[in-house]
Amino acid sequence: MTVRAILNSKGHHIVSVEPETRLSAAVKILSERRIGAVLVLNQQRIAGILSERDVVRVLGESGAAALDQPVSAVMTRKVISCRQGDSVGAIMEMMTSGKFRHLPVIEDDSIVGLISIGDVVKWRVREFEHEQQALHDYIKSA
Amino acid sequence: MTVRAILNSKGHHIVSVEPETRLSAAVKILSERRIGAVLVLNQQRIAGILSERDVVRVLGESGAAALDQPVSAVMTRKVISCRQGDSVGAIMEMMTSGKFRHLPVIEDDSIVGLISIGDVVKWRVREFEHEQQALHDYIKSA
Repeated sequence: MTVRAILNSKGHHIVSVEPETRLSAAVKILSERRIGAVLVLNQQRIAGILSERDVVRVLGESGAAALDQPVSAVMTRKVISCRQGDSVGAIMEMMTSGKFRHLPVIEDDSIVGLISIGDVVKWRVREFEHEQQALHDYIKSA
Repeated sequence: MTVRAILNSKGHHIVSVEPETRLSAAVKILSERRIGAVLVLNQQRIAGILSERDVVRVLGESGAAALDQPVSAVMTRKVISCRQGDSVGAIMEMMTSGKFRHLPVIEDDSIVGLISIGDVVKWRVREFEHEQQALHDYIKSA
């Protein structure tokens, strides 16, 4: 099972903001869309990613004043990405070792989707069921 | 692999607040401890759970004023829990179908730990590696 299979099911839609967007506006987007992160794009290039964790961190550090800051001051700048051909197992390892929960998918320098840890677990549950079935079938037929 | 194995590795420590705690104080705890949720306890009983998602939702709806509210006005009241004997696969399914990322572990009416989706993925990666190895060994020896 690959990232491509997850994207084909969940869709390739990406929610993004600009670096100058105020944090309060970005929070409204996260809240209304019920999503855990938005990409921060500067002329179609990834400038960063803003997650629920980033929001809570800066509110804890700076209080309500943080909501007036631009997203660029709060976002995570170091963004790890994956490719459509990557296996679900591989991106689980990336998320575990990097301690993040959202992964943009890049293909030929374009952003083609965003995978969350929730997407991964959902698909891992299905894949596990298929594997167990295949293993049982194999043992029965051996 | 069960919830017990995860707890034995990550520890049984629980971070909690009281229903009257102000949201701003709870956010500071989430931020400083770098955790995604706190349990809300009323005299040792679970009154709710407050996650990063709850914080972002209420900030999106009510803006900065939400930070002055008591946690009880913001928390998720319906808390699903698991037991130490539950399998990791089972709690992955619970998290997927319920769309939540934190699960208190209850034993004999006491709270013995809190499992996050990040813990689950970390352990699933290890378990998957063991399964693959066992399967390869079985096929080789068959």
